[in-house]
Amino acid sequence: MTAVDNETLAPTRRQHSIWSRMCAEFAGSLLICFSIYIMCSFGSAFYNVNLAYIALGTGVVYAAMTAIFAKVSGAQFNPAITVAAMLTSKTRVIDGVLYIIAQLLGAVAAGALFLFLLPSSESVPVSQWLSLVVNGYDEGSSLYATLTQMGLTYSVAMAIVIELIASIIVVAAAMQSMKRDGAPTRQHTLIMGLAYAAATAMAYPVTGAAVNPLRPTGIAVFASNKSLTVNPLSQLWVFWVSAILAAALVALVMIVAQLLSNRSAGKDG
Amino acid sequence: MTAVDNETLAPTRRQHSIWSRMCAEFAGSLLICFSIYIMCSFGSAFYNVNLAYIALGTGVVYAAMTAIFAKVSGAQFNPAITVAAMLTSKTRVIDGVLYIIAQLLGAVAAGALFLFLLPSSESVPVSQWLSLVVNGYDEGSSLYATLTQMGLTYSVAMAIVIELIASIIVVAAAMQSMKRDGAPTRQHTLIMGLAYAAATAMAYPVTGAAVNPLRPTGIAVFASNKSLTVNPLSQLWVFWVSAILAAALVALVMIVAQLLSNRSAGKDG
Amino acid sequence: MTAVDNETLAPTRRQHSIWSRMCAEFAGSLLICFSIYIMCSFGSAFYNVNLAYIALGTGVVYAAMTAIFAKVSGAQFNPAITVAAMLTSKTRVIDGVLYIIAQLLGAVAAGALFLFLLPSSESVPVSQWLSLVVNGYDEGSSLYATLTQMGLTYSVAMAIVIELIASIIVVAAAMQSMKRDGAPTRQHTLIMGLAYAAATAMAYPVTGAAVNPLRPTGIAVFASNKSLTVNPLSQLWVFWVSAILAAALVALVMIVAQLLSNRSAGKDG
Amino acid sequence: MTAVDNETLAPTRRQHSIWSRMCAEFAGSLLICFSIYIMCSFGSAFYNVNLAYIALGTGVVYAAMTAIFAKVSGAQFNPAITVAAMLTSKTRVIDGVLYIIAQLLGAVAAGALFLFLLPSSESVPVSQWLSLVVNGYDEGSSLYATLTQMGLTYSVAMAIVIELIASIIVVAAAMQSMKRDGAPTRQHTLIMGLAYAAATAMAYPVTGAAVNPLRPTGIAVFASNKSLTVNPLSQLWVFWVSAILAAALVALVMIVAQLLSNRSAGKDG
Repeated sequence: MTAVDNETLAPTRRQHSIWSRMCAEFAGSLLICFSIYIMCSFGSAFYNVNLAYIALGTGVVYAAMTAIFAKVSGAQFNPAITVAAMLTSKTRVIDGVLYIIAQLLGAVAAGALFLFLLPSSESVPVSQWLSLVVNGYDEGSSLYATLTQMGLTYSVAMAIVIELIASIIVVAAAMQSMKRDGAPTRQHTLIMGLAYAAATAMAYPVTGAAVNPLRPTGIAVFASNKSLTVNPLSQLWVFWVSAILAAALVALVMIVAQLLSNRSAGKDG
Repeated sequence: MTAVDNETLAPTRRQHSIWSRMCAEFAGSLLICFSIYIMCSFGSAFYNVNLAYIALGTGVVYAAMTAIFAKVSGAQFNPAITVAAMLTSKTRVIDGVLYIIAQLLGAVAAGALFLFLLPSSESVPVSQWLSLVVNGYDEGSSLYATLTQMGLTYSVAMAIVIELIASIIVVAAAMQSMKRDGAPTRQHTLIMGLAYAAATAMAYPVTGAAVNPLRPTGIAVFASNKSLTVNPLSQLWVFWVSAILAAALVALVMIVAQLLSNRSAGKDG
Repeated sequence: MTAVDNETLAPTRRQHSIWSRMCAEFAGSLLICFSIYIMCSFGSAFYNVNLAYIALGTGVVYAAMTAIFAKVSGAQFNPAITVAAMLTSKTRVIDGVLYIIAQLLGAVAAGALFLFLLPSSESVPVSQWLSLVVNGYDEGSSLYATLTQMGLTYSVAMAIVIELIASIIVVAAAMQSMKRDGAPTRQHTLIMGLAYAAATAMAYPVTGAAVNPLRPTGIAVFASNKSLTVNPLSQLWVFWVSAILAAALVALVMIVAQLLSNRSAGKDG
Repeated sequence: MTAVDNETLAPTRRQHSIWSRMCAEFAGSLLICFSIYIMCSFGSAFYNVNLAYIALGTGVVYAAMTAIFAKVSGAQFNPAITVAAMLTSKTRVIDGVLYIIAQLLGAVAAGALFLFLLPSSESVPVSQWLSLVVNGYDEGSSLYATLTQMGLTYSVAMAIVIELIASIIVVAAAMQSMKRDGAPTRQHTLIMGLAYAAATAMAYPVTGAAVNPLRPTGIAVFASNKSLTVNPLSQLWVFWVSAILAAALVALVMIVAQLLSNRSAGKDG
C-alpha cells in the first residue's frame, strides 16, 4: 500500500458533466476569493489585522466550499492541486485544463465584484483598499514601510520559499484526501480546512498568504492600473512558480513512492 | 448521481411529531440568537471587537445546536434553509411554515430575554447596547461614524450582495448535508459549523453578519422604539430578501442539476 | 425513535472497574481545570484578555480530554453531565456519586497545583492573580470596576441565566453524544469540544465562564482566604444551582420525549 | 477492553519501508517546526502576540501533517510520542530510534532554513528575532523583563510542570488514536490537532509552548552562539526531561491498565 493507491477505485462512478464540474470550480473559486478579499480589506481596516481571524476565516471558507462542491467536481479550487492531480492521473489532462480556466474565471469574477462594491473617497482611494488585499514581497509587501524603517526587507527568495511550503502543505493534503480517480475521501472537508488554515497562518506574516495562485491573481488584474507602490502583476509570477513547483514536487514524491511500492510488491509476489 | 440525491432515502424513518420538531426549532433558534447577542454586546463592549471570537463563537454555537437537535427536527434554525428545503421537497410545505413560525418565536424570545437581562444606566442607555447588536448598513452600520469621517458609506447594494453570498454559503452547505428527506448526513454538525463560521467571518465587517434573518429580526423588534440612529426594523427587509433570494437560487441550481442528471440518465438507459 | 434511544444498547460491553473510571474522571478534571486556570491567569495578564483564545483553548482542552478518557469513563468531567446521566439512567446512581467525588478531587488538585506554582511578589500578590481566575458576578466580577464606573452591575439573576444556558448547551450535547449506557458515540469528542467552546464564548464576558461547576470550585476553595473583594466561595452556589437545574431540565425533556414516543409507538403497534 | 487494546490488530498490514517512514518523519517535523518558527517570529513581531493565532496555528499545522503522513509513518513527529510508542510496543525499538533521528534532523533543518531566510539589520539583529522564537524560563523567558519588573520569575519547577502536563496531553492523545501496531485510527488527525492546540494554549504564556522537544531543539542549536540573554541550549534539558517523563508516565499507566484488565479477564474466564 502506498500513499498513492490508499483508496480503491470505485468501479463505475457516474461523473457529473464537465460543464457542471466547471460551474462548481467557478462558483467555489469565486466565493473563496471574494470572502478572503472582504476579510483582508474591511476586517483589517476597521478591526486591525487579526491573524487568528484570517487563518480561521480562510480555513473555514475553503472547508465550507469543499463540503458543498466535493461531490460535483472534487472541489479542487486551486491550480496547484489541479496540476498535481493531472500529474498523478487523478484528473484527466483535458479536464484539468478546463478546471484551471474555470478557477481563473472565478477568481477574476471575485476581484471584479469586490472592486465594484468597494466604497472609496478622496481620503480613502481604491488603491489604499487594494494595498491591504494584494499579495507581495519587498516593495509589494503590506509591511514594506515598517520593514524599511527597521532596515529589513522581505526578499523574493523568502517569498518563494514561504509560498512553496504553503503550497506543498495544501497540495499534499489534497492528494491524500482524494481517491485514485479524484473523488473525495471521507475526511476531505476537514483536511482541506486544516491545511489551508495552517498554510495561511504560516504565510500571512510574510507574503499576505496567497497559498493558492488564484487568490493573488483575482485581485492583481484589477490593482495593476491603480498606482500602488508596486504593480502586483509584476510580482504575480512568484505565486504561480511556487504553486506549480509544489505541485510537481508532491506529484514526483507520490510517483516515486508508487514505483518503489510496485517493485517491492513484485519481489514479494 | 446529482447534488440532490446523493444520499438514498431512508425507507420508513419514524419522524418526531410536528410539536416536538417545532420545540426543537424554537429552542435552537432561541439559544443561537441569545448567544450571538451576548457575544456581540458584552464581548465587544469590554474586550473590543475580536473578529476571530465572533466567527468562532457563531460557528460553534450553530454546530453545537445542530448536534443537539439534528435528530429531532433536522436542525434548520434558519428560514432561508427551511425555504430551500421546501422548494427541493426535503421538508413538506406545511411543516416548513410551522418551522419558520417556531424559529421566529425563538428569535423573538432570545431578543426579549436579552433585553430583560441587559443592565443599563444613565451613562450607558439600552440604545448604546443595542447599537452593538443590531445588523445594518449605511446609517445603521456600527461603523457609520468611522466610515462617514473617511467619506465612505456601506450602501444597500453592498449589504445585499454580502448577505446574499453569506446566505448562499449556509443554504448550500445545509442542502449538501441533508438527505433527500431532510434527515442529517453524518457530517452535518461539522459542515454547518464551518459554513456559519465562514459566512460570519466574511459578512461581519460589513453588515454585522446577519447570515440568518432570525438574528437581526429577534433584536430589531425590541430595538425599534429605542431611538437608535436608524430604526433597525426599517433595514430588516434587506436580510429577509437576501435570505429568500439565496434559498431560491440554491434550490433552482439543485433542481436544474437534477433535471439534467435525469435526462442524461434517460439517454444512457 | 426519540432523542433518548437514538443509539442501540451494546449488549455486553465490558466496563472498566470503578477505580479506573474514577481515576479517569479525576485526571481529566484536573488537567481541564489546571489548563483553564493557566490560560485565564498568565494568558490574560501578559497578553490581554483574548476571547477567541479563551473559547478556543477551553473547547480544545475539553475535546482532547474527552478523546483520551472517553473509552475508560465516558469522559463526563462535569457534575451537571453526571447528574443528567444519572437521571436518565445512562450512569448508575452509585457510580455517578463516585464520579462527582473524583471530579471534585481533580478540580481541587488543579487549584492546589496552580496555587503552588503561582509566582507572587509584593507588587503582584496572589490575590491579584486569583481575581483573574475566579468566576463571579456583581462585586465578584472581574469587570466590577469598569461596570461600576459606567453605573452598571452584573446581577445574580443575569449570572444564573447565563450559566444555566451555558450548562444546558453542554449537558444537552453530552446526552446526545452518549449512548443509552453512557458509552460515547462516534462524534463525542467533536461535539463536546464544540459545546464547551460555544458555552464559554457566550458566558465569559458575564461570569468568566464557569460552564462547569468544577471550574469555579477548584479555585474558590483556595481563593477564599486571600482577601479578594468578594469571597468567591460566597458566590459558588450560583454555579452549582445553575448546573443542577440545567441537568434536571435536560433530563426532564428527554424523559418526557421518551414517554411521548413510547405512547405513540404503542398506538401505532 | 482496556485503553491499550481498543483497536484490533490488522492482521497483515503491509508497512512502508523504514526509509520511506523516516522521510515522512523528517519532512513532517521540518514543516511543523518551520511553520511554528515563522508564526512566533514574524507573526508576533508585526501583529503582536495573539494567543488564539498561536494555539490555532500550531494545532492546524500538526493536524495537517498528521493527515498527510499518517498512512506512511504513523505521523509521530515528537520523540515523546515515539518513546511512549516504543514502551507500549506500538513501534519497534529500532524503528523508534531511527524515527527520533529523522525527527531531530527535520527540526534542525527547519531551524537552519529559518535562520537562512531571516532578514536582519543593525537595528534588528538576528538575536532579537531568535529571542521571540526560543523556548525558555527564568532569564530565558520572553517575558523576563516584564516579570522582573513585577518582582516575579518563572522558575524551573514551573517550566517542568507546565511542559510535563503539555506532553502528557499530546502523548496520551497519540496513544489513544493509534492502534496496537501504531497505525492511525480514524480520528487521528482531529485528535492530534485538538491535543496540540490545547497543550500550546496552556503552555505558551509560561514557556513559549515547546510541547514537543523538537521545537526548542531545532532553534536552540542555531541560537546558542547568538549572544541571547541565556543560551537556550542550557535550558533545553527541561523540555527533553519533561517529554521523556510524560512518555514514561503515560506508558506506565497504559501497561498497568492492561495488566489489571488481563487479570480481571482471567478471573472471569
